[in-house]
Amino acid sequence: MSATRYTYLGPAGTFTEAALRTLPEAATRELVPMASVPAVLDAVRVGEAAGAFVPVENSVEGAVTATNDELAAGTPLMIYREVLLPIAFALLVRPGTTLADIKTVTSHPVAQPQVRRWSSAHLPDARWEAAASNADGARLVQEGRFDGAFAGEFAAPLYGLDVLVSEIHDAANATTRFVLVGRPGRVSSPTGSDKTSMVVWLPEDHPGALLELLQEFAVRGINLMRIESRPTGGGLGNYCFLIDCEGHLSERRVSEALMGLKRICPKVRFLGSYPRADEGEQSSPRAGTSDEDFSEAADWLSRCLDGRGEL
Amino acid sequence: MSATRYTYLGPAGTFTEAALRTLPEAATRELVPMASVPAVLDAVRVGEAAGAFVPVENSVEGAVTATNDELAAGTPLMIYREVLLPIAFALLVRPGTTLADIKTVTSHPVAQPQVRRWSSAHLPDARWEAAASNADGARLVQEGRFDGAFAGEFAAPLYGLDVLVSEIHDAANATTRFVLVGRPGRVSSPTGSDKTSMVVWLPEDHPGALLELLQEFAVRGINLMRIESRPTGGGLGNYCFLIDCEGHLSERRVSEALMGLKRICPKVRFLGSYPRADEGEQSSPRAGTSDEDFSEAADWLSRCLDGRGEL
Amino acid sequence: MSATRYTYLGPAGTFTEAALRTLPEAATRELVPMASVPAVLDAVRVGEAAGAFVPVENSVEGAVTATNDELAAGTPLMIYREVLLPIAFALLVRPGTTLADIKTVTSHPVAQPQVRRWSSAHLPDARWEAAASNADGARLVQEGRFDGAFAGEFAAPLYGLDVLVSEIHDAANATTRFVLVGRPGRVSSPTGSDKTSMVVWLPEDHPGALLELLQEFAVRGINLMRIESRPTGGGLGNYCFLIDCEGHLSERRVSEALMGLKRICPKVRFLGSYPRADEGEQSSPRAGTSDEDFSEAADWLSRCLDGRGEL
Amino acid sequence: MSATRYTYLGPAGTFTEAALRTLPEAATRELVPMASVPAVLDAVRVGEAAGAFVPVENSVEGAVTATNDELAAGTPLMIYREVLLPIAFALLVRPGTTLADIKTVTSHPVAQPQVRRWSSAHLPDARWEAAASNADGARLVQEGRFDGAFAGEFAAPLYGLDVLVSEIHDAANATTRFVLVGRPGRVSSPTGSDKTSMVVWLPEDHPGALLELLQEFAVRGINLMRIESRPTGGGLGNYCFLIDCEGHLSERRVSEALMGLKRICPKVRFLGSYPRADEGEQSSPRAGTSDEDFSEAADWLSRCLDGRGEL
Repeated sequence: MSATRYTYLGPAGTFTEAALRTLPEAATRELVPMASVPAVLDAVRVGEAAGAFVPVENSVEGAVTATNDELAAGTPLMIYREVLLPIAFALLVRPGTTLADIKTVTSHPVAQPQVRRWSSAHLPDARWEAAASNADGARLVQEGRFDGAFAGEFAAPLYGLDVLVSEIHDAANATTRFVLVGRPGRVSSPTGSDKTSMVVWLPEDHPGALLELLQEFAVRGINLMRIESRPTGGGLGNYCFLIDCEGHLSERRVSEALMGLKRICPKVRFLGSYPRADEGEQSSPRAGTSDEDFSEAADWLSRCLDGRGEL
Repeated sequence: MSATRYTYLGPAGTFTEAALRTLPEAATRELVPMASVPAVLDAVRVGEAAGAFVPVENSVEGAVTATNDELAAGTPLMIYREVLLPIAFALLVRPGTTLADIKTVTSHPVAQPQVRRWSSAHLPDARWEAAASNADGARLVQEGRFDGAFAGEFAAPLYGLDVLVSEIHDAANATTRFVLVGRPGRVSSPTGSDKTSMVVWLPEDHPGALLELLQEFAVRGINLMRIESRPTGGGLGNYCFLIDCEGHLSERRVSEALMGLKRICPKVRFLGSYPRADEGEQSSPRAGTSDEDFSEAADWLSRCLDGRGEL
Repeated sequence: MSATRYTYLGPAGTFTEAALRTLPEAATRELVPMASVPAVLDAVRVGEAAGAFVPVENSVEGAVTATNDELAAGTPLMIYREVLLPIAFALLVRPGTTLADIKTVTSHPVAQPQVRRWSSAHLPDARWEAAASNADGARLVQEGRFDGAFAGEFAAPLYGLDVLVSEIHDAANATTRFVLVGRPGRVSSPTGSDKTSMVVWLPEDHPGALLELLQEFAVRGINLMRIESRPTGGGLGNYCFLIDCEGHLSERRVSEALMGLKRICPKVRFLGSYPRADEGEQSSPRAGTSDEDFSEAADWLSRCLDGRGEL
Repeated sequence: MSATRYTYLGPAGTFTEAALRTLPEAATRELVPMASVPAVLDAVRVGEAAGAFVPVENSVEGAVTATNDELAAGTPLMIYREVLLPIAFALLVRPGTTLADIKTVTSHPVAQPQVRRWSSAHLPDARWEAAASNADGARLVQEGRFDGAFAGEFAAPLYGLDVLVSEIHDAANATTRFVLVGRPGRVSSPTGSDKTSMVVWLPEDHPGALLELLQEFAVRGINLMRIESRPTGGGLGNYCFLIDCEGHLSERRVSEALMGLKRICPKVRFLGSYPRADEGEQSSPRAGTSDEDFSEAADWLSRCLDGRGEL
């Protein structure tokens, strides 16, 4: 039944599955791998799944374009959770293989730049070929078509392989960010350390609009955590922006900023307020921007209208 | 009884009285001249008058400091009306006096720079001396202590004088702005062309605060019509600002901006929303800042919180 | 010899080649297709080619990540020209094939979303498979492995195919932007309608930096034409921005803005000033930002230092 | 001879003279009191004096309008030094007078608000009348026309009076700021803790101009130390601003900001760069705005134009 089903970008044994399993609720859901980001999300749109789990950005490779474009267009969806997963690759081999035996390796193309330096140093002569996914690369090693696969360590038992080398990553802190997406619903309560996501279309023929948009956040002391431009499809030079800011839509500073965007932009799509996964970095709102400050100011305004502003 | 009494900066026969009489309601009030701006305003503060009428700025001489300081400090007052009076001086003389007879002239010191050029051209040898007010200058001419007085034309009959020359003003468009002040009360309804006045104290040790303050207006498309700095009394470099902006406190763009100021500044004193006297210049709010735009954005926000932001 | 050689993203018969051939100088160059963006650019870096021609963004699919990342990192390169090519696909078939005969089609994955709607309407039952490039898809049709290929019309004669349908594009105005890249050299003279490209790294731990960066342009009246964020590889939340602005580095408004960026950002990479390809849209600089305005202000400043500022 | 003559706002025995005498060079100059600010400054304009010393603002009473207006209009002048003088009043009496004897007191009108609270507490029944200056008040006490005068303690010996009470000031930190003004000349070298003064006229019909003006400073990290609005004489709503900012015209951040003002404003009058009198508060320029930062950025720009931006 769909209420217990989560789709995710498959196949099984990829980092996406590993990230999904860090969510406690995943233990009680039926987890269904699907072949593409649109397929994963469409399952939620048509009601065949309650949640969809997809990568959204990688600290080395950047935005996952397919996810951004799906969130910005089509039937609306909302983000309910995010997961950050440090990315480290393992070199998986058939039992008995040594480094010297490896003539061919495979991985998903996105993985390649992240292991390139390690490969140059330790496997200078091995030839790399693309696999449809890291997990699929492991399968191809199992079948004997390659000697080694770069994949998540957790993929080894699924394919009867050994971990020859672990913790391979050229960039320290390589991290992928995933989101759990569902059909739009009531925004859950703030946790005190939240993030809000949206897509904003700039007005055309208004070159200063991006600056105005950023000032709606700045004037209310809200830090941006991510800003990605995407073409709108309306010709070169027309962009929408996927923005993550700190704070929760139920906070006054955030809601006022979003209403400001709504007033100056032709279109704003709210993508959800949800707990931040990067614990420990939450800063308290800038002086004058807490909900209490907003309430006091609203009370003062009411008194002003009655001629009692000084009370 | 105080409810029918308006005090004004006297004496009788000055531009202040002439400006006050342009208000229709002045016809049914007891108009009482007083000797100083604090005296005029204190009469309202203690309940001896319902309204106080004082000059607030002159397009040649600038702010009337006493009025600004009284509005910024002490028991709160509110502005209910403004009057703009074009300032043109007349040269008042005893009947029979000709230009060639005039050896001495008098006026209030503020008037002098406004007739200096005319005087140099037409009375190059006449000696000027200060009077306590323009009307008092006329009285001194009546008494024979000076040959001529620069004053409002309307002062002539009060003192049995003739208007020898009229429409004297060095600066074209010389205008004085007056306000009718009362005890704080409910803000009257917007007229569609209103102005809002306030005093704002900047946070200390925060050099960028003036810019932030102006951005609270700019981000909501509100034009400033006047900004005057005054010392706070807390040492050099500490200022408060008297600000007039377009719009009415009951407009959302204005109320949100004032709440913004209230949140970032240690003190904001609301001085009233009242009809603009400079008819014909009212511009419609910038796109996205009308009350309707604010309402639509608020409705959208409510829907977002319910997961129906796209409706 | 390398001075006459231009590399481009191959294979032959793609839109990239078509765009390259719109440059007059292409007629006298040896045009060498290469298999990947890094390969195309590295040929210039090592001196095997004088120019490299690559796509940089598409109005439907967005930034060409590989190009952006190559320009931002590694041995510096500079952009000398840009070309905008409207993108329209043709359905190429072996002679004699009709729409009803087509059971399988192929194209580069980027092409698929741009012909999806047309395919649903006219080839609802045909199965699509990926090709390494649109031109390679045409080759596969020639070999009989697919019934049709979506590619540029100009690819038909190369592979002995017929154009069954032309002008296929789901989005009107679909355009791809290409750049001609070379080793860094003296910036060519301004044409009066130029564009300047750069990569800017934001200071870390300074959430307002993006706003400050944009203000360096805004305060000098410079419109941005493109802004793309890319991860720096230093962990999530750390971005650099690829920015195109109007104007030429030899214009004072532009050079002053870039020096401003250089002062506030840890790293700025200048990517070139070159003629705009979107003729007809050049706007004159905002009042006060022309080179003449800068010269006059500099002259005035010199006089101020000598006590002759009023002259 | 004029080169050794300094005029100052008299009469002798006022705070202005006391402030002037804090300047070391005053010891070797002929100090000439004059009756009005215009007279003091005109003596310099016509070459009868080398320097003119006038008050410019008071932390309680605000701007000295006459000084501001004279600096903004007429033949240009420049500021070469500033002096800050803490203001404390003494109650001067004829020898033998006690507090209980005092029925009448006098002072310059500006002094009155600064001793009002003290007077209410200690001389509740004494009547106050205006004097032309504090020193003149002392003279009137000497002549027996008043029982006491509020003036600077240093005025006592000049008029044969005793100091009955000293250190009277309602506002702690009451300070007056004076400037030494001369004909425009070469700006003296920076001291490392300087201030720059100017008058800026806003473009008409451009409501956002004040914000743009402030951003020219903000974008270069320059703190404003004072901003005063004055009417331009061109009708209500038209202002010029007297601005003091930190830094010296020979610093790049300051000169670039002033050139920015010059480009956007119809008129800018440079009033001088001179040492700050409030020692100890000088902050180092914001990161990225030192002259060294500007030089490095200019060097980088030159290299960019030559294709060597990465060096």
